Amino acid sequence: MLTGGALGAGLSAVLGAGGALGFGAARTATAPVPGAAAAAETEPSLGPGGGLPGFGGESLPCHGPHQAGVITAPAAHVRYAAYRLRPDADAEALRRMFRVLTGDVEGLTSGEAPLADPEPELAARPARLTVTVGVGPELVDRAGAARPGWLAPLPRFDRDRLNGDFDGGDLLLAIEADDPLPISHAARMLERDLASFVEPLWRQRGFRRARGSEGDGTTMRNLMGQVDGTVNPSSSEDGFDGLVWLGREAGWLAGGTALVLRRIRMELDTWDMVDRPGREQTIGRRLSDGAPLTAPPAPPLGDGGERTPADFDAKDARGLSVIPVAAHIRRAHSSDPSERIFRRASNYDDGHEAGLLFACYQRDPLAQFVPIQRRLDEADLLNEWVTHVGSAVFAILPGFRPGETLGAPLFD
Amino acid sequence: MLTGGALGAGLSAVLGAGGALGFGAARTATAPVPGAAAAAETEPSLGPGGGLPGFGGESLPCHGPHQAGVITAPAAHVRYAAYRLRPDADAEALRRMFRVLTGDVEGLTSGEAPLADPEPELAARPARLTVTVGVGPELVDRAGAARPGWLAPLPRFDRDRLNGDFDGGDLLLAIEADDPLPISHAARMLERDLASFVEPLWRQRGFRRARGSEGDGTTMRNLMGQVDGTVNPSSSEDGFDGLVWLGREAGWLAGGTALVLRRIRMELDTWDMVDRPGREQTIGRRLSDGAPLTAPPAPPLGDGGERTPADFDAKDARGLSVIPVAAHIRRAHSSDPSERIFRRASNYDDGHEAGLLFACYQRDPLAQFVPIQRRLDEADLLNEWVTHVGSAVFAILPGFRPGETLGAPLFD
Ligand code: HEM
Ligand code: HEM
Repeated sequence: MLTGGALGAGLSAVLGAGGALGFGAARTATAPVPGAAAAAETEPSLGPGGGLPGFGGESLPCHGPHQAGVITAPAAHVRYAAYRLRPDADAEALRRMFRVLTGDVEGLTSGEAPLADPEPELAARPARLTVTVGVGPELVDRAGAARPGWLAPLPRFDRDRLNGDFDGGDLLLAIEADDPLPISHAARMLERDLASFVEPLWRQRGFRRARGSEGDGTTMRNLMGQVDGTVNPSSSEDGFDGLVWLGREAGWLAGGTALVLRRIRMELDTWDMVDRPGREQTIGRRLSDGAPLTAPPAPPLGDGGERTPADFDAKDARGLSVIPVAAHIRRAHSSDPSERIFRRASNYDDGHEAGLLFACYQRDPLAQFVPIQRRLDEADLLNEWVTHVGSAVFAILPGFRPGETLGAPLFD
Repeated sequence: MLTGGALGAGLSAVLGAGGALGFGAARTATAPVPGAAAAAETEPSLGPGGGLPGFGGESLPCHGPHQAGVITAPAAHVRYAAYRLRPDADAEALRRMFRVLTGDVEGLTSGEAPLADPEPELAARPARLTVTVGVGPELVDRAGAARPGWLAPLPRFDRDRLNGDFDGGDLLLAIEADDPLPISHAARMLERDLASFVEPLWRQRGFRRARGSEGDGTTMRNLMGQVDGTVNPSSSEDGFDGLVWLGREAGWLAGGTALVLRRIRMELDTWDMVDRPGREQTIGRRLSDGAPLTAPPAPPLGDGGERTPADFDAKDARGLSVIPVAAHIRRAHSSDPSERIFRRASNYDDGHEAGLLFACYQRDPLAQFVPIQRRLDEADLLNEWVTHVGSAVFAILPGFRPGETLGAPLFD
């Protein structure tokens, strides 16, 4: 660690060799004063910001049977970062890595700041920060654990245009919070502490709605303007666990889940040129409130329209399907309830490219995501305006309790 | 405009030439149904979202003697976009461009959605959206107006490391809101409507604190962890207008101001290695609450510490300056009150690079920003960890009233 004394050198450099003050004098004038330094170090700490006004002080527990960030209410901001293992990161190193990660996740999410966090003030107000950790096939192999069949790149879809920039990875950190500042800080602390084990592969940032900008429970809109996320299994419904959380048979993954993350670019310029009815038929829902299309007259706008079950059999006066045969919701809809996925998408806009960070959780991507995506890949009116450009699958580790280490079952 | 009918072609393609349905049939099956289309188009509109819960519906007036976004309370998110004029954008074209821009700014900021906005739902909840428009030297020349002396690239500073990626521009749009969604939408609408006049040059995105995450009036923290923005002229103080807003003598710029935007990279990895007293002495304020350093004992933490005037003469028991001679606040402080600037910074974090989007407003950058930056360039303890990598100066246009056109005085 540099001490304040090192500042003297910088000052002497900026004053220039010809300055009136020599190095020693400059150093004396600006070196930290022992008394002041001690005072600064023993001054009372504001501690985690839970007592201050605003939601910044809110924290979500990171402990439990499952990791936070999967079924906890989606936050306003998300950042996915994938890493490659360094060549020398063997099982022993990975154990150490997970111990470091555990301490960091506990510290960052609680607002207590991890050990050796140089900026505890940036950690003090986590705004519901979650750090969700996933692993790729290479990490599972190196840990010496059994790799589930689905933990591999997805089968190729005809319309895929993966460019390699946002594909795969050995370790994933999905960081969410209602404020970008704690995300930025957490990402940096984690990256610093993991630097001897992994190197960065890719990063993606998404946003939903700012917290407080809409009533609670309002479904977000994506950048095409659609209400996005309406039909989704609820974590309180019977059978949810069987869809999403892996059971005992999954061994080290019991209590974990599988994440599919697709980066889907939107062709918004041509989308804008489609008229409103055309855009509504593409999805099969209306733009105003997300209600499914019905035979005319359209029901009035109001609460609940969005939640009306879609009537896929409805015909108009001419006998044609009101929800077109290739409408997105018809093609994406699973009549087999065990084929469903739990979606948790966010918007991305890098300035030059915008779209959806499509994230979904499930027990088995090959049995859940893949058949849905096969149908969409084959026929979906939406395809004209969306292109899958990135794809990754991660095993999301089981939850952990205080005193336990995240990822420990990998080494059992 | 494509109509829903065009969807048929897409569907026929996905069903494949060998499908049972020929092109015509596919078209019939999925073409918009006249009745349904009409129903969709006449359905009641939710209109601007002001009546819904949450702050999303809040809008700031874009009309007034000055443009919004300069002294209005800083929003949570900001996006700066600079453009180059197309070669054929002459004065006549620029007049048209400003008419388009005026309508867009009025529509987007009010939540009414501009004419021909295909996604009015994304515009309906502006969350205090502001669009602040600035012009560069080339645009002023083409409009045939007189160019103020300061409207040019800034003089070079020794420590500048401008890389050309974020420098200058002919037209600037600074878009702020408390929610990234309306910013993303507004940026796209504006870019689309301006496309025949300008082409994109650069874009930068910044964030402050999420709205509601802290008590009102809390000063933001930057990514070094410092409370940033404490000492700043207040728009309600005497003399503010003379510092920031241009007067009649400025001709077409009366009611406008000058923006300096510097992209300042932070070297956070080495910053993290400095101990806490060293980091506090670098700025001259303590990290916990932003209070200026004082001789020991340090005053208790609490309200108001941040607002205590810095005592630049204070010495410790050994007779040394408590606020080091090259501390940032000492070097940045202007003893000449007319040399002050009005700062409005935000954080940026692109994943691979993080820092401060340092924005400041003033009447004359050469008389206000430049002397301060000269002092900092010469000697500032902070220099060890910050590097200016982008620089731009824009004339921020005067405000406009309903019925008037933003930028009209340029052509008088
Ligand atoms: C950019 C690409 C996409 C966009 C813009 C999009 C948009 C939408 C919209 C607006 C809805 C209706 C509201 C709702 O229930 O959420 C919807 C439903 C749905 N989407 Fe997507 N989606 C996209 C990609 C995908 C992908 C890749 C999958 C899975 C492979 C998928 C699966 C679903 C499912 C399962 C539903 C619910 C269907 C039902 O009603 O049962 N979507 N999507
Ligand atoms: C990344 C670069 C910078 C950082 C991290 C930074 C940070 C800070 C901090 C923490 C303060 C003390 C709190 C406050 O009053 O806001 C401050 C004050 C100030 N800074 Fe900076 N600053 C940076 C660049 C600049 C630049 C480029 C200028 C202008 C050329 C500038 C001008 C000022 C001024 C005028 C003050 C108030 C000084 C006074 O107390 O009178 N800063 N800055």
